[in-house]
Amino acid sequence: MNDTSVDNLLKSKLSVVNVGLEGFAQELSSLGVPVAHVDWSPPAGGDPELANIVSQLILPGETTKQIDAANQVAVRRMLDGDPVLIDVVPAESVIPELKDRLVLHAGPPIEWPRMCGPMQGAVSGAVMFEGWANDLDAATVMAASGGVRFEPNHHFSAVGPMTGMITCSMPVFVVENRKFGNRAYCTINEGLGKVMRFGGNDAEVLERLAWLRDVLGPLLSQALRASGGIPLKSMIARGLGMGDEMHQRNIACTSLFLREIAPWLARTAPDSANLAQVLAFIAGNDQFFLNIAMAMGKAIMDPVRGIPSSTIVTAMCRNGTDFGIRVSATGDQWFVAPVEMPEGLYFPGYSEADANPDMGDSAILETIGLGGFAMAAAPAVVGFIGAGNASTAVVYTKKMGEIAVAENPEWAIPALDFAGVPTGIDVRLVVGSGITPAINTGIAH
Amino acid sequence: MNDTSVDNLLKSKLSVVNVGLEGFAQELSSLGVPVAHVDWSPPAGGDPELANIVSQLILPGETTKQIDAANQVAVRRMLDGDPVLIDVVPAESVIPELKDRLVLHAGPPIEWPRMCGPMQGAVSGAVMFEGWANDLDAATVMAASGGVRFEPNHHFSAVGPMTGMITCSMPVFVVENRKFGNRAYCTINEGLGKVMRFGGNDAEVLERLAWLRDVLGPLLSQALRASGGIPLKSMIARGLGMGDEMHQRNIACTSLFLREIAPWLARTAPDSANLAQVLAFIAGNDQFFLNIAMAMGKAIMDPVRGIPSSTIVTAMCRNGTDFGIRVSATGDQWFVAPVEMPEGLYFPGYSEADANPDMGDSAILETIGLGGFAMAAAPAVVGFIGAGNASTAVVYTKKMGEIAVAENPEWAIPALDFAGVPTGIDVRLVVGSGITPAINTGIAH
Repeated sequence: MNDTSVDNLLKSKLSVVNVGLEGFAQELSSLGVPVAHVDWSPPAGGDPELANIVSQLILPGETTKQIDAANQVAVRRMLDGDPVLIDVVPAESVIPELKDRLVLHAGPPIEWPRMCGPMQGAVSGAVMFEGWANDLDAATVMAASGGVRFEPNHHFSAVGPMTGMITCSMPVFVVENRKFGNRAYCTINEGLGKVMRFGGNDAEVLERLAWLRDVLGPLLSQALRASGGIPLKSMIARGLGMGDEMHQRNIACTSLFLREIAPWLARTAPDSANLAQVLAFIAGNDQFFLNIAMAMGKAIMDPVRGIPSSTIVTAMCRNGTDFGIRVSATGDQWFVAPVEMPEGLYFPGYSEADANPDMGDSAILETIGLGGFAMAAAPAVVGFIGAGNASTAVVYTKKMGEIAVAENPEWAIPALDFAGVPTGIDVRLVVGSGITPAINTGIAH
Repeated sequence: MNDTSVDNLLKSKLSVVNVGLEGFAQELSSLGVPVAHVDWSPPAGGDPELANIVSQLILPGETTKQIDAANQVAVRRMLDGDPVLIDVVPAESVIPELKDRLVLHAGPPIEWPRMCGPMQGAVSGAVMFEGWANDLDAATVMAASGGVRFEPNHHFSAVGPMTGMITCSMPVFVVENRKFGNRAYCTINEGLGKVMRFGGNDAEVLERLAWLRDVLGPLLSQALRASGGIPLKSMIARGLGMGDEMHQRNIACTSLFLREIAPWLARTAPDSANLAQVLAFIAGNDQFFLNIAMAMGKAIMDPVRGIPSSTIVTAMCRNGTDFGIRVSATGDQWFVAPVEMPEGLYFPGYSEADANPDMGDSAILETIGLGGFAMAAAPAVVGFIGAGNASTAVVYTKKMGEIAVAENPEWAIPALDFAGVPTGIDVRLVVGSGITPAINTGIAH
């Protein structure tokens, strides 16, 4: 396996299928964000050079049987994962490197000059938020001149949506995989409107982040600690029966989470004004659960890294410039290709010229069998934007089954007569099938 | 139209299709309640005497065109309904007759001697609860000897699940139909375990009812008033996209309701201990929303009563002995037939001899297009008990479409490519089709 051939593979096959999002037209217009990409036709396979690439994925002396066995080990670890949401803590308390002016971002590694505009804007905002600079101009100068250091979230057991900023004082969800003892982190979803994950960095954005840090984070921490932790596997199972696929659509799991946490918040919150504000904030954001699901995905996949001979994908992510994946056998090595500019529908007045390639670590959800892989559970996602109907959604999940090595019996889809979500993307199958992994990216998160 | 022929109609055609319920085996065993009936094969139509009955439904001089037009008026009123949950109040404050030792029950009119055991047990418990007798024996003697008066909930703009008890001090939800100005009422769901709606009447049952009256009711009242009311139509629309059909399955709407009300509860509750208890109570009962949905159903259907020539069913309900319906043109007249003993699956150790015919006003939900009519939205209801799969659920909704005169475009089902739920049961179509209205009754509510 070498970088160049996998680069080719990624370039030609791992383009991202985006699906639009419900009801955000206004927010998007006000932000100048163009609509998401919709591409329901995976490119046809059969390119003769792919056979060449497949052969390079297999190391000298490795047999198909060995690889299959390794992949079964990998999938067993995925299915055995027992993710529990246990706390919300300041990021620097679990990632001490952040204290040294480190800025974590979504996607594979990237330095300032190659970052897209929204990512640079978010970095400047985060520098301001941490008080490392007094105004945005100074923050931008600092970021551009080596005054801060950049690393991917994925290097620190973390993930983040869109720009994916994590800096030292930001509160992060802590999901513990109780089967393997590892933990993973993700920031708290900011909701709609102007937000840092889209590159926002003005006073409104920073004020909300301060409230997350000073009010929501500490209250959620107390409630989660008092609860003893909220098991996530069963919550996802319920959510799949309630129309969520946990990437574009999280209304069910957001509601189920609020149901679980509300009594604990009431028992532990010191005053009712903040309590009411916290409950209203969670209740007001259908995508609140997304970031919890992402931390869960990372907690499930981290133990799957570094299994010799396994061709299972352990991470997929984008930084707005590059798309990167990691494969189990090759551990923490990144395979990177440029993110293609999506061709899709735009709101009136916008065109491809206004668009930014997709960003974010959220494709960790597809890696664990949710998002585009669980589309059959969420016909509303396809139905709403007119890109298809319930049958289209079913077809999508079945297609994804062709590039996955197993089903997850604990995460069943009623519309598929309770078949489990396709689990464990095998890079060999992606190449062999001509199927693009369907990633439900969009503008919602 | 005369009682005898409609009795025959009801006897032969309006038998109840029950669907089993998730996860309550233990609770049921402890209560000695047998499992619900499962019958997925509507009796075949074509009985020659039905033609005779159809002819009697039509008054002299009435044309099919007139009836069709009247039914369109009826359905228009249903679709125009704008139900909003506005308050929780003591029943006697909105139904003053209750102060005079009146006991309201589910189903069509019935007196003590013909009441089934669970209904009699519930009545005795309610008499105790109101302090009209000092012990259960005295309460039973009082109820059996004319010491209390009985009337159906439906006579007072009210509905209730199972035994459906409403007495003066019980708190009731108030749903206002803002299009027509009428209001409807339903008690608060007691949750699982020993409960009055199954005929329970011991100390545990009465203590819970007292807590509903003294704590939950007043706190919900304050929160609902502060909120300005919670519109229900849009909440149902979301619930249908989240696997609820609002009769057997209310987990989505219960969660959505909690999401809406939690911030208001936090703003208005005087102390956090009670607040936490209230949030935990609502969060702990997947069927909490059922009673709200039932009050909504009654609020939607009441303005549809008494439209000359309309053959639309305005109420269906059971008191454990009789099954009764009301039809628009005949206003508040009841058409009654015995409830058939369901033939179904029983838990080990139970048989038909232990069973009680179905009870409750909850079939008001099927009357407005939910429950069995919206089964396609809730494949989990059929899938869980092995009585079918997602396709079976779709077939059921489509069948119900054959006895309904319209679809509700605001209540769409993703699995049916966003077709609306079948709305407005036309008695003529029931007779003509040989289709039994599917009513998702069971032991859950």
